[in-house]
Amino acid sequence: MTGFAPRTAKIPYGGDYNPEQWPEEVWEEDHRLFGKAGIDTLTVGVFAWSVVQPTPDTYDFTVLDRVLGLAAREGRRVVLATGTAAVPPWLARAHPEVHRTDFEGRRHGYGQRHNFCPSSPAYRRLSTALAGRMAQRYADHPVLLAWHINNEYGGACYCELCARSFRDWLRARYGTLDALNDAWWTTFWSHRYTDWAEIEPPSALTEHWRGPDHTAFQGITLDYRRFMTDALLGCFVAEKEAVRAHSAGTPVTTNFMGPYQPLDYHRWAPHLDFASWDSYPPPDAPPTRAAFAHDLMRGLKGGAPFWLMEQTPAATACRDINPLRRPGELRLASWQAVAHGADAVLYFQMRASRGACEKYFGAVIGHAGREDTRVFREVAALGAELAALGPATLGARTPARTALLFDWDSWWALEISDGPSRLVSYLDVLHGYYRAAREAGADVDVVPVTADLSAYDVVLAPLLHLIKGDVATRLEAVAERGGTVLTTCLSGRNDEHDRAFLADVPGPLGPLMGIRVDEWDARPAHEDRPVRLGDLEAAGSLVFEIVLPRGAEPVGTYTADFYAGTPAVTRHRFGDRGGEGWYVATLLDEAGTGEVIRQVLARHDLLGPYARHRGVESSRRVTPDGTELHFLLNHTAATAELTAHSSATDLLTGKPYEPGDPFTLGPLGVAVLRLA
Amino acid sequence: MTGFAPRTAKIPYGGDYNPEQWPEEVWEEDHRLFGKAGIDTLTVGVFAWSVVQPTPDTYDFTVLDRVLGLAAREGRRVVLATGTAAVPPWLARAHPEVHRTDFEGRRHGYGQRHNFCPSSPAYRRLSTALAGRMAQRYADHPVLLAWHINNEYGGACYCELCARSFRDWLRARYGTLDALNDAWWTTFWSHRYTDWAEIEPPSALTEHWRGPDHTAFQGITLDYRRFMTDALLGCFVAEKEAVRAHSAGTPVTTNFMGPYQPLDYHRWAPHLDFASWDSYPPPDAPPTRAAFAHDLMRGLKGGAPFWLMEQTPAATACRDINPLRRPGELRLASWQAVAHGADAVLYFQMRASRGACEKYFGAVIGHAGREDTRVFREVAALGAELAALGPATLGARTPARTALLFDWDSWWALEISDGPSRLVSYLDVLHGYYRAAREAGADVDVVPVTADLSAYDVVLAPLLHLIKGDVATRLEAVAERGGTVLTTCLSGRNDEHDRAFLADVPGPLGPLMGIRVDEWDARPAHEDRPVRLGDLEAAGSLVFEIVLPRGAEPVGTYTADFYAGTPAVTRHRFGDRGGEGWYVATLLDEAGTGEVIRQVLARHDLLGPYARHRGVESSRRVTPDGTELHFLLNHTAATAELTAHSSATDLLTGKPYEPGDPFTLGPLGVAVLRLA
Amino acid sequence: MTGFAPRTAKIPYGGDYNPEQWPEEVWEEDHRLFGKAGIDTLTVGVFAWSVVQPTPDTYDFTVLDRVLGLAAREGRRVVLATGTAAVPPWLARAHPEVHRTDFEGRRHGYGQRHNFCPSSPAYRRLSTALAGRMAQRYADHPVLLAWHINNEYGGACYCELCARSFRDWLRARYGTLDALNDAWWTTFWSHRYTDWAEIEPPSALTEHWRGPDHTAFQGITLDYRRFMTDALLGCFVAEKEAVRAHSAGTPVTTNFMGPYQPLDYHRWAPHLDFASWDSYPPPDAPPTRAAFAHDLMRGLKGGAPFWLMEQTPAATACRDINPLRRPGELRLASWQAVAHGADAVLYFQMRASRGACEKYFGAVIGHAGREDTRVFREVAALGAELAALGPATLGARTPARTALLFDWDSWWALEISDGPSRLVSYLDVLHGYYRAAREAGADVDVVPVTADLSAYDVVLAPLLHLIKGDVATRLEAVAERGGTVLTTCLSGRNDEHDRAFLADVPGPLGPLMGIRVDEWDARPAHEDRPVRLGDLEAAGSLVFEIVLPRGAEPVGTYTADFYAGTPAVTRHRFGDRGGEGWYVATLLDEAGTGEVIRQVLARHDLLGPYARHRGVESSRRVTPDGTELHFLLNHTAATAELTAHSSATDLLTGKPYEPGDPFTLGPLGVAVLRLA
Repeated sequence: MTGFAPRTAKIPYGGDYNPEQWPEEVWEEDHRLFGKAGIDTLTVGVFAWSVVQPTPDTYDFTVLDRVLGLAAREGRRVVLATGTAAVPPWLARAHPEVHRTDFEGRRHGYGQRHNFCPSSPAYRRLSTALAGRMAQRYADHPVLLAWHINNEYGGACYCELCARSFRDWLRARYGTLDALNDAWWTTFWSHRYTDWAEIEPPSALTEHWRGPDHTAFQGITLDYRRFMTDALLGCFVAEKEAVRAHSAGTPVTTNFMGPYQPLDYHRWAPHLDFASWDSYPPPDAPPTRAAFAHDLMRGLKGGAPFWLMEQTPAATACRDINPLRRPGELRLASWQAVAHGADAVLYFQMRASRGACEKYFGAVIGHAGREDTRVFREVAALGAELAALGPATLGARTPARTALLFDWDSWWALEISDGPSRLVSYLDVLHGYYRAAREAGADVDVVPVTADLSAYDVVLAPLLHLIKGDVATRLEAVAERGGTVLTTCLSGRNDEHDRAFLADVPGPLGPLMGIRVDEWDARPAHEDRPVRLGDLEAAGSLVFEIVLPRGAEPVGTYTADFYAGTPAVTRHRFGDRGGEGWYVATLLDEAGTGEVIRQVLARHDLLGPYARHRGVESSRRVTPDGTELHFLLNHTAATAELTAHSSATDLLTGKPYEPGDPFTLGPLGVAVLRLA
Repeated sequence: MTGFAPRTAKIPYGGDYNPEQWPEEVWEEDHRLFGKAGIDTLTVGVFAWSVVQPTPDTYDFTVLDRVLGLAAREGRRVVLATGTAAVPPWLARAHPEVHRTDFEGRRHGYGQRHNFCPSSPAYRRLSTALAGRMAQRYADHPVLLAWHINNEYGGACYCELCARSFRDWLRARYGTLDALNDAWWTTFWSHRYTDWAEIEPPSALTEHWRGPDHTAFQGITLDYRRFMTDALLGCFVAEKEAVRAHSAGTPVTTNFMGPYQPLDYHRWAPHLDFASWDSYPPPDAPPTRAAFAHDLMRGLKGGAPFWLMEQTPAATACRDINPLRRPGELRLASWQAVAHGADAVLYFQMRASRGACEKYFGAVIGHAGREDTRVFREVAALGAELAALGPATLGARTPARTALLFDWDSWWALEISDGPSRLVSYLDVLHGYYRAAREAGADVDVVPVTADLSAYDVVLAPLLHLIKGDVATRLEAVAERGGTVLTTCLSGRNDEHDRAFLADVPGPLGPLMGIRVDEWDARPAHEDRPVRLGDLEAAGSLVFEIVLPRGAEPVGTYTADFYAGTPAVTRHRFGDRGGEGWYVATLLDEAGTGEVIRQVLARHDLLGPYARHRGVESSRRVTPDGTELHFLLNHTAATAELTAHSSATDLLTGKPYEPGDPFTLGPLGVAVLRLA
Repeated sequence: MTGFAPRTAKIPYGGDYNPEQWPEEVWEEDHRLFGKAGIDTLTVGVFAWSVVQPTPDTYDFTVLDRVLGLAAREGRRVVLATGTAAVPPWLARAHPEVHRTDFEGRRHGYGQRHNFCPSSPAYRRLSTALAGRMAQRYADHPVLLAWHINNEYGGACYCELCARSFRDWLRARYGTLDALNDAWWTTFWSHRYTDWAEIEPPSALTEHWRGPDHTAFQGITLDYRRFMTDALLGCFVAEKEAVRAHSAGTPVTTNFMGPYQPLDYHRWAPHLDFASWDSYPPPDAPPTRAAFAHDLMRGLKGGAPFWLMEQTPAATACRDINPLRRPGELRLASWQAVAHGADAVLYFQMRASRGACEKYFGAVIGHAGREDTRVFREVAALGAELAALGPATLGARTPARTALLFDWDSWWALEISDGPSRLVSYLDVLHGYYRAAREAGADVDVVPVTADLSAYDVVLAPLLHLIKGDVATRLEAVAERGGTVLTTCLSGRNDEHDRAFLADVPGPLGPLMGIRVDEWDARPAHEDRPVRLGDLEAAGSLVFEIVLPRGAEPVGTYTADFYAGTPAVTRHRFGDRGGEGWYVATLLDEAGTGEVIRQVLARHDLLGPYARHRGVESSRRVTPDGTELHFLLNHTAATAELTAHSSATDLLTGKPYEPGDPFTLGPLGVAVLRLA
């Protein structure tokens, strides 16, 4: 997958900037403060449609011209947005069909943002026109660094226009209704379609009950999610083409949202020149939660660096509870992004909005315009640090030997499944395995099931509910060359249409795992079942598959219920080179997952040097010239007393280390070691 | 109430079978496995509409002909469904009014099942045509055992067609608007109707707020539920008549769902030739929960045996958490059904669906088609046991001397009531009394308030919120001939229109109970109030009526709050033969309910011989030739050491017993004793 | 603010009476029982529209003539309702637009009450016509005491008629779209309106998500609430004018609902001749909760007495759990109302409805029509007590020196705010400060931000989120003349349009408070943070502002988290006369709030003599002739042993007291002391 990233001399630093909301005298003050804070990059125009095109027939670039002119004068670069993520009122009134019809069947009216119908001809025409006009005007502007199409694409529409597009999409996918009826298993409940026009979007008014996750026909719902991913992608591609027509030399992106369920970003990735995303981890999440998302985003473009397009310098506003980033957290999170592959560090927002729903969203410059706030001081300190670092990390890649398979189709299929348990969270389980591997010190690539797996010693494939294409064969290949593949309960169940394999569970993964699953129990969340793992008594929860070994040997064992004594974790020698297939038949708790993953990593000597230092994260990157960088991040409030394990220099302090040297990381401390 | 049941030589064994979803080579394999499992009965065609009638003008019986032909060849019988429970897409598209309008006022589109509008002329016309064609073709087929109309009727529609039908139904019920205004008490809040056309279905858009249980006018809502019960019954009757026209000699049923709130099955019962139902008790419910439903279903046809039309051999799929039936549970539940009056034991489903929302629903034959699964082995073992039993239980009736009144109107009225407490669950309270009686060893008939009560020594009437017809007089008659009648708080409040009696509470039940209720308190669920019952300190909850005895004597007493010292349970001698009326003024906990019920049963010598063996259920049936059968079911995981109390032979082992012999029931063990 | 209240010779006693639901023989019995209970005042006609106007062209006053005639014969007075709160079915059918469109965009159909669209021309025309006809007929009837317009106005409509009215309202408010765009900060998210017709009501289909409290544009939503307040007020004013045209000499009111969020009663107050309200405090709320509402209602008309228009004599019916008023509670609550300014004590309802959703609502006369119930006895005893009291309390005013600012705009703005915390409840926090002051013995006026503050020593302004008009200046004036002003976190943030002040927090309150807030943290409810207040370790929760003193001194200090050691409570000397501004930077628990408030009150010698008697409430009123009344209310179940602190006579017992005399208040006891 080829990339095409902005070229910069250091990590770009700055973020979303909306001067069109303010009088021009404020702009000058903004730039003065940007200078103090080391801000060199501004994202401009994200919601400027109604300013740039105040009427259907008028484009007015006065404000943007001045904004970009001032940026040029002040020596800053601009990520320029096409501004199409919120439509202006006149457009909505002239074309009511631009509003979405929601899952409940309600046509919406004007309001909010990110809510245009992707099948609306008027939206498509006017948004691409705007993108084209923007590109035409600013393609050669000296400040231009990258194009930012739209903003945080998401959601879904269920209107009649989308229904028609969905039918076209299905016709292209299946060719015949017989093929579609077979894929969706429509004879069940008498749904055999005899005319394409009979097909309705699966919604609260048709196939669903109790919400978007409960459907009578998983196949229909899966396809609608794929279709909606493609429909929104169509909007992106149309804008991108309009931009490209005038501005071939500038890379194009749109800002993603990490593990965002509604859109399969793997379908989008080939169409972006480089990946970028907005990081707002859940409050009080463990640090691996943000890292997981970084690695997923890095995996979109085959491991190429991504941009951290947004993060808050202080607090969010959109949540029920919006905790403040504590002193040092912003710096730590920013370096964590860089450690995982970010080549830019940007904020939302540069100046706090005066009104509307983001006025309390954290900003580099608050309502009082002060530079003597704690937040501003931390922002400025980080700006200075990034400036001092220079280009040292740009373009570096992560030399991971462990992969985690991430599959939107499996995510969707698992969570819309009727039975065995609605309580299984794909994201939580995947993060659990990711966390275990990261805390053991392994670098991890989070990759699609279509990724080339030949570089990995360990491939983790939890909850691989659907087996598509040749992934089973490629997983076997990993083991055949000596690697380890791990999968879990609820894997290998269904094909790409969510039709069960007519075979023993885990279906195509059975030969590699050396087991068959005879049946499975499900219990409420509080009804754990103990699992013995060597000396460790761990616990399984929610789902308990009953495994019959067919070549595999037990690693862990249930010790309660009628399946006491049967295997809960197995390993299976596969191939001639010492490869193994590991199967975890239940959802293990953190201790159990950690134990299993450390056993697997240890087989391949992948435990990191600081694997026993809880809360100390280590991460590696290799620069284009082959320099190895080790990032060390102390996520705890205590000082970590470590020992250097290589000859290296800390790029942040300039201090050199030799193996065996004591190495101290203060609370929330960061080191960027360049290995000798 | 006359019955007309299928004639079989043993308990039919099998269940729902959908070969139309599979290639024919699979069918042969199915029958091979059916042979191994002792399967002799198949329910066919439940969702076959789109296969049988692929277009408006075409009927195609090819598949069904073959399915029935193969069944005939293999010596199996078929329960044939009319297949009208899920409409084909072409019908939905041609007649959008076939879709329901939901409680929120939303017209639905095509999808799911069980969701046709009962007032739709197109649905009525096409469903009866299909039923007639099916009957015409298969009336004389040798495999035909019974007709299965539609499937699990339920839900409600609020469309304009239903509104019109509702008005017609009201005109027939009330004759004049004055009568209706009086019944609904419309002067309250200025609702006096002056034209039938002004009346709207009570929905979220009209009389309701906060959902279906909150209505401004209980009378309107009660009548709409009665109307909807009748509207769906109209669909059933229309299909039944279409079938009967061609197939007079074969009994007709539809599968009920036990205590299903939306439909008053007592209004349906006279129209079925025999009752049948699908048993899916809530996970981890006590065993009396399923038994309660069995006895309710048996009560539909005056105590005649019913069919267990569906149960899962392994797990459900439709719930958030779908636990597996543990080893032995399937057998125990099946024999429990027989013990309570089932003359058939059938499953959903014979072969697991490959796709859609029931692919994880338990099946006799799983996706891998194996016969060496635990589930298949248990199914086959039970098949053998039933085969060995032969006709011994067929047609037997339950010789209960205790009745529990079950009244859909009271259920509805109580749970749509504003005040005193929304937390009272009719079903939970009724089950609580049922459970107490069953655990004390009494056989219980669960009967409508219109039932002949002359055979009962004890009549339990908890939460008899509405007093309709002559039920108060008939309850007095029970006591007059020496029996005991028990009722509880919130009984005797309102007439059939939910209008309060202008009298002391408990209204028409006052003379029998010998009390008046002066007022009532309601408290949150966690605020129990202690109740002294002899040596027992029990607890009341939710509702606390303050009782003034008017002839009754206290049996239990509140010991807290300002009503401490006043009676919580009373007994009242009524009539000349030692009859009594018992009143329980609060919702007692399990211990308190058990104590009261055992005192009542003891008065009539109705405590069973194993009343002290917790978890051991005993149940009696008497066959048409007068043979008495005692079923003993051990619901615990421990062996029960009992003593035989009659001369009897266990039909499952052939072992004879004399009174006083030790008698052992293993964990989840079953015995079917034929008394000498 | 001028008042115009009914003239009575004693506290009117009675309540809502709907004889039109009953045959006339019941009416005579009603009046017999009214006589027994000391009932002299009846509210008539509240839902009589369909009786009075049975068809569009017919008015029929037969029933009301008789009802009023009987009242006259029996010597009772009547509060006459216009009867427009529930429309008759014929009106709804003839004019479907009279039904509201709800927040979800659903047009409702006929049902319930209080649900007419305020912009409906048909409703406006027909309701004012009815009001006019009522006034025309009964203006001079001897029983007429007051006019009761409609009933419990509330809710909101989102129909197209309301949209048009909203646009007119906005045009009148803003004049130009530029002004509106600026106020709503529409450039954010590209919402710059270019035509008034583009503006839609903010609803679930436009600017809102996750319900009425989540909006993209706070300014739009705030204005819609103001508009809807005015739209419903327009209905009231139209009816009032229709009444006034015929009945100039009789005062007019409508019954409010205390701190009812949807309507800003301060906008209504000038249009009522006197305030009245319906008191249904939340179950198990502390007694200050009802008192808080009384004082808010008293504040509507500048401290003039209000009417307690409804309370239940026994239990409500509309709640999930409807507890019974325990013995003595009714009397205590009634005297509490009088203690806080009520000049009338009325019930809902005189006779229990036989049907519909209020049949279980408490009534003076129950379904059995008895006079020997506990409730009737308590009602009658209170009736006798009020009769004995005579005119002693009428017209008395509360001599409060403490004010609490209550501001619907701040309530709305705070609870629709995105960030920092959705968990802050305006009402709970304001009640918390009110409670602390009341429990310390201070009389408190709850007043709008526009109130004259010159009479107060202490002004409490918690959560004063919006600063409108000159309130900051007037608060400074309080301190300048030596008073104390207290405010809290989340105050002084935004202007009347919810636009942030471009200044340090707390904006215009900063000079008075002598601080600036640098940033603020938000945490989940269970994550308290300790706050040291002298010897007390209190706790803050939800929001934690980090305060930099700018002249203020710390009173309390955070002792945990990274802001440990920084001030949580500050005081700031302001002006030359010892005035102070107090700032509480977090939401203190009950102990902390109590400590702070007692320190503040103590500065002004405002602690009451019984401030240390927990559960004993004291309240003062001064009659028009200057007599001082002290009400003492024992809210506990224990006898309170007090000491008299003035020469006084208890008007309920006639007993005289001298300072120092022992003074005993029994459980739930009441004394009304007239000071010598």
